[in-house]
Amino acid sequence: MARKLRYGMVGGGPGAFIGAVHRSAIALDGQAVLVAGAFSSDPAKSREQGHELGISESRTYDTYEQMASVEKSLPADQRIDFVSIVTPNNTHFPVAKTFAEHGFHIVCDKPMTTTLADALELSHVVREAGVIFALTHNYTGYPMVKEARHIVHAGELGIIKKVVVEYPQGWLSTLVEDDGQKQASWRTDPKIAGAGALGDIGSHAENLVRYITGLRIAEMCADVSTIVPGRLVDDDANILVHYEGGARGIIYCSQVSVGEENALNVRIYGTKGAIEWDQESPNSLILKRQSEPTSVLRAGQPYLSEAAQSSTRLPPGHPEGFIEAFANIYQNAIGAMSALDQGLPLEELDLEYPDIDDGILGMHFIESALKSGRERRWIDASYELESER
Amino acid sequence: MARKLRYGMVGGGPGAFIGAVHRSAIALDGQAVLVAGAFSSDPAKSREQGHELGISESRTYDTYEQMASVEKSLPADQRIDFVSIVTPNNTHFPVAKTFAEHGFHIVCDKPMTTTLADALELSHVVREAGVIFALTHNYTGYPMVKEARHIVHAGELGIIKKVVVEYPQGWLSTLVEDDGQKQASWRTDPKIAGAGALGDIGSHAENLVRYITGLRIAEMCADVSTIVPGRLVDDDANILVHYEGGARGIIYCSQVSVGEENALNVRIYGTKGAIEWDQESPNSLILKRQSEPTSVLRAGQPYLSEAAQSSTRLPPGHPEGFIEAFANIYQNAIGAMSALDQGLPLEELDLEYPDIDDGILGMHFIESALKSGRERRWIDASYELESER
Amino acid sequence: MARKLRYGMVGGGPGAFIGAVHRSAIALDGQAVLVAGAFSSDPAKSREQGHELGISESRTYDTYEQMASVEKSLPADQRIDFVSIVTPNNTHFPVAKTFAEHGFHIVCDKPMTTTLADALELSHVVREAGVIFALTHNYTGYPMVKEARHIVHAGELGIIKKVVVEYPQGWLSTLVEDDGQKQASWRTDPKIAGAGALGDIGSHAENLVRYITGLRIAEMCADVSTIVPGRLVDDDANILVHYEGGARGIIYCSQVSVGEENALNVRIYGTKGAIEWDQESPNSLILKRQSEPTSVLRAGQPYLSEAAQSSTRLPPGHPEGFIEAFANIYQNAIGAMSALDQGLPLEELDLEYPDIDDGILGMHFIESALKSGRERRWIDASYELESER
Amino acid sequence: MARKLRYGMVGGGPGAFIGAVHRSAIALDGQAVLVAGAFSSDPAKSREQGHELGISESRTYDTYEQMASVEKSLPADQRIDFVSIVTPNNTHFPVAKTFAEHGFHIVCDKPMTTTLADALELSHVVREAGVIFALTHNYTGYPMVKEARHIVHAGELGIIKKVVVEYPQGWLSTLVEDDGQKQASWRTDPKIAGAGALGDIGSHAENLVRYITGLRIAEMCADVSTIVPGRLVDDDANILVHYEGGARGIIYCSQVSVGEENALNVRIYGTKGAIEWDQESPNSLILKRQSEPTSVLRAGQPYLSEAAQSSTRLPPGHPEGFIEAFANIYQNAIGAMSALDQGLPLEELDLEYPDIDDGILGMHFIESALKSGRERRWIDASYELESER
Repeated sequence: MARKLRYGMVGGGPGAFIGAVHRSAIALDGQAVLVAGAFSSDPAKSREQGHELGISESRTYDTYEQMASVEKSLPADQRIDFVSIVTPNNTHFPVAKTFAEHGFHIVCDKPMTTTLADALELSHVVREAGVIFALTHNYTGYPMVKEARHIVHAGELGIIKKVVVEYPQGWLSTLVEDDGQKQASWRTDPKIAGAGALGDIGSHAENLVRYITGLRIAEMCADVSTIVPGRLVDDDANILVHYEGGARGIIYCSQVSVGEENALNVRIYGTKGAIEWDQESPNSLILKRQSEPTSVLRAGQPYLSEAAQSSTRLPPGHPEGFIEAFANIYQNAIGAMSALDQGLPLEELDLEYPDIDDGILGMHFIESALKSGRERRWIDASYELESER
Repeated sequence: MARKLRYGMVGGGPGAFIGAVHRSAIALDGQAVLVAGAFSSDPAKSREQGHELGISESRTYDTYEQMASVEKSLPADQRIDFVSIVTPNNTHFPVAKTFAEHGFHIVCDKPMTTTLADALELSHVVREAGVIFALTHNYTGYPMVKEARHIVHAGELGIIKKVVVEYPQGWLSTLVEDDGQKQASWRTDPKIAGAGALGDIGSHAENLVRYITGLRIAEMCADVSTIVPGRLVDDDANILVHYEGGARGIIYCSQVSVGEENALNVRIYGTKGAIEWDQESPNSLILKRQSEPTSVLRAGQPYLSEAAQSSTRLPPGHPEGFIEAFANIYQNAIGAMSALDQGLPLEELDLEYPDIDDGILGMHFIESALKSGRERRWIDASYELESER
Repeated sequence: MARKLRYGMVGGGPGAFIGAVHRSAIALDGQAVLVAGAFSSDPAKSREQGHELGISESRTYDTYEQMASVEKSLPADQRIDFVSIVTPNNTHFPVAKTFAEHGFHIVCDKPMTTTLADALELSHVVREAGVIFALTHNYTGYPMVKEARHIVHAGELGIIKKVVVEYPQGWLSTLVEDDGQKQASWRTDPKIAGAGALGDIGSHAENLVRYITGLRIAEMCADVSTIVPGRLVDDDANILVHYEGGARGIIYCSQVSVGEENALNVRIYGTKGAIEWDQESPNSLILKRQSEPTSVLRAGQPYLSEAAQSSTRLPPGHPEGFIEAFANIYQNAIGAMSALDQGLPLEELDLEYPDIDDGILGMHFIESALKSGRERRWIDASYELESER
Repeated sequence: MARKLRYGMVGGGPGAFIGAVHRSAIALDGQAVLVAGAFSSDPAKSREQGHELGISESRTYDTYEQMASVEKSLPADQRIDFVSIVTPNNTHFPVAKTFAEHGFHIVCDKPMTTTLADALELSHVVREAGVIFALTHNYTGYPMVKEARHIVHAGELGIIKKVVVEYPQGWLSTLVEDDGQKQASWRTDPKIAGAGALGDIGSHAENLVRYITGLRIAEMCADVSTIVPGRLVDDDANILVHYEGGARGIIYCSQVSVGEENALNVRIYGTKGAIEWDQESPNSLILKRQSEPTSVLRAGQPYLSEAAQSSTRLPPGHPEGFIEAFANIYQNAIGAMSALDQGLPLEELDLEYPDIDDGILGMHFIESALKSGRERRWIDASYELESER
């Protein structure tokens, strides 16, 4: 038996959405056990949540700083192996930085920070610390997204020529933040969230394309709007993209598309074929070729790639969903932590997960889109990662 | 019994696609009878087609000029009532002008001309002649598109905030024009077609939105590409749009989207609801509201508007398609011709069909998109019709 | 140019549904011209309809007997070539018999008669007369149904093991016949319709399976019900079937399935693959194989069989529907009439259409189902056609 | 915090499918912790699995009898609260009986036993012991199935008139049991599985209808077949059903429907409306009414019933699947155990889960279908539970 890791959580207090998802995703595969937490910036709420989750009082902390420092002081066989950061966006940076500096592995919700500068600084800290850093761009955890990536990388679509990625939601189509809706309140507060729709879901859309195709944006022209009067952040963004190598793209995200739930959809057209994947029907992947019958590939089937098969728990026709995809991110991240701690050669293992470079590129994408939108013109949106220099 | 009209056709010779569609659409409802034609610029082919269609030799013409002039000279109870122009784009203008000048009603394929200047000139000739001019933006003939228009105009969606219209095809994803594919050859020849994808299908997309919503484009930023090396016209265009009144939009058309057939799809989001219609499943219209069940409206049902019901021939669940939608354009256009000829008050009849102003706005859209694409910037794309001054 | 045939119609008066479908289907392809009719059993209505359709008064008849006899007396280059019979079920037999005896070709709506005995007698008359007899089991006219048949006959599914055919409608889920709904009134009157749902739509379901697979029923156990109190005919029937050769089947038809439109759906499972076709999405055919991606075949594509391709008028993605499928039945039937009249070898031409044997087997199916339902037991439902003896 | 329960597992050794599903389902919501197990009838394999799962050696048992007796002897704050039985069918009865007799709550996979007699005996033991017994008819755990039940019980469909439930799979379309496929081997061994498709999936289909509608079968006529030569159990069954109250039904299950995955689908037609639910798209429920737009209800939406909402973890558009549905069964069953142990009034809590009566009715259904199939006739299939007498 592989040793179960121990983890702590920062955020995920009463009423939070994504904290519970992280906990369920980890629990699903029994890879790690929650043993500590600073669940809220309000110490009383943190203790309430710790109690509810059965965490011992001594390891339910009032602040994340306290948590990092106390956990660090515990014997190696008791202290947490990693921290899950599920706080609002603006605290991702200080929390992640602190835990990295204390030598803990990190799984952090996206967007990684609220500025590119913070993202870069964090990347230096993480590299220095030598810890694993995983960013939960969870949609890349779906088996059929992994299959899409496999198909593109195997060259089955030829050269990619056109990309269309859409991410419409409707839940912010009125000014719900003024009604005290908790999720809406912080996600539309520029001081907490940074960007609006661009950060919350646009960054997922960009990441999804990059994950599947490897394509990097060269230039873009963005139309960034605040549709709902009184809102303080962008809630609709439509972006024309030129990818390096020449592919054309449309990236669009909206949180004011009335009646849409979470309709992330991506289509990739190459010279030889095309694929389409829809997050609300995640267990199918559509493969099209000119003048050939369209194929529908299905999760769990033996004809899929190893990457897709190994990220599925059930036989075909037994639907898996959002939590399972999330759990797949954790599987690989935890696998990497275990491997690193055991001194195994990480680079030889096929343990892909969104990492700090994804976070940097995500922040660069958000900032570029905001800039292009502000200036109402095409801008250079290329970016060279330090790792690429 | 309403008198059946007599019509002639220019174009629609052997091997043509759209000419046969026009003939079938007219025949379907028995509204008019083909009695004359100049079916090809090659007199031998014209005669061959006339013979095939059972047209008398005396009324199978070598040229459209001859046809206009001879038909004009026939007794009123024999001569054609209208002409269907189904030639390649660059001849629409001279043919339509000629027949208008001879006093014939006109049904013309789109795009109306190859330049805005020609479109304007034609509009003057048509107005002067006092004839009916219908442009076959056939997708507006679908019953569920009429229902969509009804829903928007009835205010059921509130104020329109976002529009996404997509029109991907894949049939030009290789350089088929070099293989002698007839449809591809003229549609990708700038001298014949004018624009490429923008004219062939982009103009349909723009028109469809305008038909449903009444929205007019204020400004746009277009990314117009020729994806297939060696092609002489645009084959992919992605356009950011600001509509008058503030709605944001994406209009995209592509003929290099491998594996797509004729995937025209439109989504209209308002403050109170949204609709989606897909040309490949034309008998359904999806109506979404925030936090309410999604509704699927179906052609032929008694709950539809009068406009949708009266353009359906069959009970629910008996699919109607492309030709039937085309026939609906003809029904209204022919109805208008009959009404006009009988001296009935046209403005009191509800006989909508795409007309000369649609043609002008379509040409302006195409020219604006090409310009914005060339200049790689946002441009003013508003347009005031003479009828609006 | 092939000579256009002349046809007459019996039935199809004001307010009738299927008569107009027949006329549109014929007009669509311009294969024949309506020149005569006895459009209603009420002479005044017949004349009204004849006038509306532009038929000369001399050929608008008061009775079908008069029509048969007068038409017979006309010169060969004026008289009708065939008759379309679109009356309620109980008159199909006498009308068809009369026209066959006068030597006219016949296209007749289904079910062919109201008793098997009549069907057999009609078959003798037709054979004796040497005329073409086509029965409008129109669903077999859809291109993707022809493709399904091709796939089965080519052995691509292996040996057929299981068939599920469903035909639910909802329009008779209340006692609409008592509200004077014309279609409902005669279709639920046992004296006019014979059977109810079994005759009206069950016979289509049975025929569709037989068309695609060639399978003949060996035995059946039917559960035939009248769900709506006060109704005089069956409105719901669920039938277990053993086909010759051992395949198992379910045939179900219902006109009381609230909310269903015209949801004819067939699934055929063999040892090597399976196909599914749905009448409300008629331009797709789904092909499944165990542990392989599912394929979606689409009308108009070049990879389809000759039979499917030649029955499509438009490129892929341009929907065709019910009337087009109907027209395909007429194309082949009219083709056969022309061939026969020109002395061409019919058996060498690939002109399949539902014929008199389909009518006999249909009536045998209906009578068997009613008998099995009455006796509440499995019965022998095999049948040997005279042509098979 | 509610106390986490402790549970043990019987079955679920290396390579088993359903054992892992049960463990993941329980882990997902953190309701209970696995502390003991007899994971295989092979003691070595049991220990291997226990080790893999991190169970202490002292509580990894060689036999279920040993487990029941040792656990019983442990202090109340250490011993298991309940057992999950995930063994092949023929051991459900002895294992469940043993644990019930030792006073443990039970969650047992379906079918409950292999004979109705065993089911009845078990029900007596369970009632005597006063323990909670839950049967994992997991499909009733889906939120939209709960919504379907709510809709029917609220009378929104009127009186139910017709039911169609289909459960086709394709994985046994060849004789895979001869290739050593573990799942196939025991599921097609009559000594281990009892029935074949009828027990494995037919019982789910019957249960699903009963859960949603409350309808009980009055009589049936079944066509039960073994399609694959050499197979020892039924692999295809088509059943005509009369429900008490007069509704007609079709229940069909098949494991030889090539290309089908796990296509459980149910349609319920009433006098006022109809619903359709498809297991492979589980987050939607379709609601149809005659002459009204079709509604698509979606998991997570605020308009759903309390039962549907409380069994969803995520916002709309974030897919949940098979494991989540399974977890919902456990939530209620564990809730009931906790309530019972705390002396709370169970009958006042709304904690529905499939129970011992579902198991009895399931076994009666299976035996009735086999009998009707053998005798090839309609049989009385009504059943009065002891609790109803």
